[in-house]
Amino acid sequence: MKKLITSLLLVMALSAANAQQSLVKRMNPTNWWVGMKSPELQILFYGDKLAGHTLTLKAYKGVVLKKVHKVENPNYVFADLEIKPETKAGKLEFQFSDGRKQITQTYELLPKNPYRPKGVSPADFIYLLMPDRFANGDPSNDKFADMADPLMDRTSPWLRHGGDLQGVTNHLDYFTDLGVTALWLNPVIENDQPTTDEGGTQRSAYHGYGFTDHYNVDRRFGGNAAYKTMIDEAHKRGLKVIQDAVYNHVGINHWILKDMPFKAWLNQWDTFTQTSFKEPAVLDPHASAYDRRIMSDGWFMPFLPDLNQKNEFVAKFLIQHAIWTVAYFNIDAWRIDTYMYNDMAFMNRCNAALLSEYPDMLLFGESLATTVANQAAFVRNNINGLPFACNLPSTLDNQFFVAVKDALNQKYGWSDGVNRLYNLLVQDYLYKRPDLLVTYLDNHDEHRFLSVIGEDIDKYKMGLTWLMTIRGIPQIYYGTELGVKNFKDPTDAEVRKDFVGGWKEDKENKFLKTGRNQRENELYDFMKTLAQYRKTSPALTQGKFMQFMPYDDGMYVYFRYTDTSKVMVVSNTGEKEKGLDIKRFAEQLKGAATAVDVITKERVALDKLTVGPKKFFVLEIAR
Amino acid sequence: MKKLITSLLLVMALSAANAQQSLVKRMNPTNWWVGMKSPELQILFYGDKLAGHTLTLKAYKGVVLKKVHKVENPNYVFADLEIKPETKAGKLEFQFSDGRKQITQTYELLPKNPYRPKGVSPADFIYLLMPDRFANGDPSNDKFADMADPLMDRTSPWLRHGGDLQGVTNHLDYFTDLGVTALWLNPVIENDQPTTDEGGTQRSAYHGYGFTDHYNVDRRFGGNAAYKTMIDEAHKRGLKVIQDAVYNHVGINHWILKDMPFKAWLNQWDTFTQTSFKEPAVLDPHASAYDRRIMSDGWFMPFLPDLNQKNEFVAKFLIQHAIWTVAYFNIDAWRIDTYMYNDMAFMNRCNAALLSEYPDMLLFGESLATTVANQAAFVRNNINGLPFACNLPSTLDNQFFVAVKDALNQKYGWSDGVNRLYNLLVQDYLYKRPDLLVTYLDNHDEHRFLSVIGEDIDKYKMGLTWLMTIRGIPQIYYGTELGVKNFKDPTDAEVRKDFVGGWKEDKENKFLKTGRNQRENELYDFMKTLAQYRKTSPALTQGKFMQFMPYDDGMYVYFRYTDTSKVMVVSNTGEKEKGLDIKRFAEQLKGAATAVDVITKERVALDKLTVGPKKFFVLEIAR
Repeated sequence: MKKLITSLLLVMALSAANAQQSLVKRMNPTNWWVGMKSPELQILFYGDKLAGHTLTLKAYKGVVLKKVHKVENPNYVFADLEIKPETKAGKLEFQFSDGRKQITQTYELLPKNPYRPKGVSPADFIYLLMPDRFANGDPSNDKFADMADPLMDRTSPWLRHGGDLQGVTNHLDYFTDLGVTALWLNPVIENDQPTTDEGGTQRSAYHGYGFTDHYNVDRRFGGNAAYKTMIDEAHKRGLKVIQDAVYNHVGINHWILKDMPFKAWLNQWDTFTQTSFKEPAVLDPHASAYDRRIMSDGWFMPFLPDLNQKNEFVAKFLIQHAIWTVAYFNIDAWRIDTYMYNDMAFMNRCNAALLSEYPDMLLFGESLATTVANQAAFVRNNINGLPFACNLPSTLDNQFFVAVKDALNQKYGWSDGVNRLYNLLVQDYLYKRPDLLVTYLDNHDEHRFLSVIGEDIDKYKMGLTWLMTIRGIPQIYYGTELGVKNFKDPTDAEVRKDFVGGWKEDKENKFLKTGRNQRENELYDFMKTLAQYRKTSPALTQGKFMQFMPYDDGMYVYFRYTDTSKVMVVSNTGEKEKGLDIKRFAEQLKGAATAVDVITKERVALDKLTVGPKKFFVLEIAR
Repeated sequence: MKKLITSLLLVMALSAANAQQSLVKRMNPTNWWVGMKSPELQILFYGDKLAGHTLTLKAYKGVVLKKVHKVENPNYVFADLEIKPETKAGKLEFQFSDGRKQITQTYELLPKNPYRPKGVSPADFIYLLMPDRFANGDPSNDKFADMADPLMDRTSPWLRHGGDLQGVTNHLDYFTDLGVTALWLNPVIENDQPTTDEGGTQRSAYHGYGFTDHYNVDRRFGGNAAYKTMIDEAHKRGLKVIQDAVYNHVGINHWILKDMPFKAWLNQWDTFTQTSFKEPAVLDPHASAYDRRIMSDGWFMPFLPDLNQKNEFVAKFLIQHAIWTVAYFNIDAWRIDTYMYNDMAFMNRCNAALLSEYPDMLLFGESLATTVANQAAFVRNNINGLPFACNLPSTLDNQFFVAVKDALNQKYGWSDGVNRLYNLLVQDYLYKRPDLLVTYLDNHDEHRFLSVIGEDIDKYKMGLTWLMTIRGIPQIYYGTELGVKNFKDPTDAEVRKDFVGGWKEDKENKFLKTGRNQRENELYDFMKTLAQYRKTSPALTQGKFMQFMPYDDGMYVYFRYTDTSKVMVVSNTGEKEKGLDIKRFAEQLKGAATAVDVITKERVALDKLTVGPKKFFVLEIAR
């Protein structure tokens, strides 16, 4: 019986070999470039029994096939190449020989891409949107019967709604009008991965955090071509694009997982073991190996298995994909999902590789850490003696997100209310570059900001004012500019609602002033005023930050300033109207008696200023 | 008229000069030693119009009078000496000459004191007591009619109660029986400073934090002699002594303030300006000079003026007093009051001077900071880029004090309950030496521990167990070993009650087993068992600390271990009885199946262990 099967497999293998086109079913990266800073490239070849072939490279000036790796699964071969600096673009020809027949597989080396990622900086204002829920620019790509997940239904919170990249492209002028300078989309890479919940309901991976093929943007978003178009059009309007990267895990439907190169591609457990979601274990000098391993190697979800980044092949696969993505799409900055769950040695290597190729890129992580110090541990920081020295330039400032809500919702107290925000910013000494932190008030995983602060428009405006004027790179979440509200429900759909007007069948269009009601326009205009002013203000985009200790039951005053530009922000978080004790601020005011109210454009006398409860002023001080 | 006064003053000055003994009324330091590491000494001479004299030093081998400073107030002269290493003990003779007459003032250089301060270490267990409220060993010194504050009244919460150093000496065996190894007394230096509150009630400075003469232990405690005796007797019993130092301020009745050398001896303000008590201002990279100055230079209380430590004479005065105190009394360790309020450049210089003379001393500060990172900023830490790099070896662990109460009082949650304690210890990466932090559950400024935890004896024992077995140097406050309870009231007297049995007239004597009731003996014996076991356990006194993430709604397990000794502490902070998942702890247990319960001395099988709600085990694991 065994002999029969062997013979049968041999016949099948021969048949495959005869059909040259089908021997290599996948190559990752799908192409590469000449002129990269690193001369190294490792190509993953996937195809039936590839390891039974001898792999050679037809002579190509500047390119050396240094090593061919065979692994547990004979369907994979990994080829290490050196691509010397002088190499010209063209097609490599790999030859797979089984001793009887030789099959050629071409591999494209493109010319060096001249695009230099622009990075994002404190001068930017980031707009986060969920592509499935923003706008449906191309109804022809809403669903595909040949995909594992063929469903689309706007009435279901769990399923895809048809939003796509063309939808984003169609509304780029909306962003520039608002004052946005950078777009961050939840991941666009293929997530062809339906899951079924306990009740038998299908859930689609519309959020994008479970990749099933690294080298394809999801067809339902329009594929690689639509992403390229969107980015090119964004760049034409001065908008930068931030890619949402996921290294920690993949979707369980990822093509590689269906026929893994080796078992150690994933962090494996005898029985399903979920991460503890507790980052302290990887920072604690007193931690057990047990806790550290569960945090780092436990799976995020049963359908989001954990990649073994300690494995050299996995590491190279991920790093090369990151570089490929930037080079292929002209990405400007890089948001890294679930940063704390990754292997930190891998992350440092990966970040270094990206920054080596693209020194101007900004990389920032998602690190929902327990404490300010722990958050700082996952970015370039001033702390010695951690288990690892993080080289990540920036992180989402989750602690700011929490502190602003406390500042607006708590009664003023020794450490409460606005002192939460003040005390947070004090601890900026922990960061190498607090000015690069990405600050936010809500996102796709959180309650809508307006709901969290009790739908209080005064608090809403104060929070947005802090976001736009305190140090950091501000980010909002689509709809927040219009006062979209809601608390998360178990489906998360309540905070991921379709942008009204993004679908042809929508009865209203909030992209247009005429489609917005009075309150929506008030909020939009407020956001726009702040954002457009911010763009023009050296103090806000490059300036230093000086804060005064909150006083008088809730008065909080801070300055942003350069040698030539100065903005004073006065916030009364208390319950009574207050005057301004201008002597206190003499070192910044330097005798200035008046200022221009940035919102109303009116000139005000500082010593006459009265600030009502929950009111604030953004004041440009003449130099 | 002016001429007449001048003549009169001249006559008075001459009369003073004729009375040799009274020309120099004060010399600080009151003596010095040969053989000190630093050859420098600055003597403050105080006396009527001293600056009108020429000061010379009669030849003394090895001693050079390098400079004589005159200052704003002619009643002061500061003399800089160099005392070379080979100098022999003896009496210096200073000569004050007004051109007509020469007056000799002797100054004693004592032989080098061979005592080497022992420091305190993680092997120690510190007992804090308030000397006025502990025991009255000498009723003859309870009050003095010639002092500014002549009152004593045990029935008043505000006034002195008569406790003294002889009272402490009388009960040294109580400490050794309990397992205490180091005594910390609230300051013993003269506080001859009555104040009157708004209602006209007199308050005595019995707490000790307002010095009125640095070089005299308060007469009502027995003076310098009684302190020396107490320390000598303590040392004979193996007990170390910790001095409570105050650099930031003095009592407004301090002799120097009545006739200041110069205005800048104090940090002066146009009108009374109190410190903000907010340490963030001195750490904040974004702080205003305004806020920093108020925090550092504002006065602690109207009657506790702020010393100007940036002034060279003040700095030397304080540093020399610190060194003098150690050398004169044989102090072992040094607790520094209100550390965060001091000038940090001065503190670093002062600490360095003390540690240069006494490298084995432990110095620890009181830093009631807002956050863990801020607390770490005021001790040797792993944070770069702070406004100052603190050289203080240790600090009172106020964050531990807060976290333990939360751990015992809060319901278990993601970051609540025992996770507060776990998350605190995770942040030990911020400290250079977390093992040197002085941990505590209460002190003279706080509610009694037993009251804070709702008088729950289970929680009380669990808290004390954590105190005695987690990293750090544990400290208790007098009476806590007996379950003394109470919340602070405005007088603070409720947490500063007299130790029952310390006064002859007391009807009960809690120093004796026979004087304690059953519960008091149960608690005393519990504390004693832990403390005496701790002394013998290398794991607890020198061992590393490994904590496991709290799990199963409140199970918290940690280990202390050396190569030869291991202690496992299992605490169930939850509401249900739990078994022990021993596989989780395999890396520490290494197959150990049984352990000895340190409290009951019984051997237990680890896999059979059940831990009731609020119950715990301290287990010695055989190696």
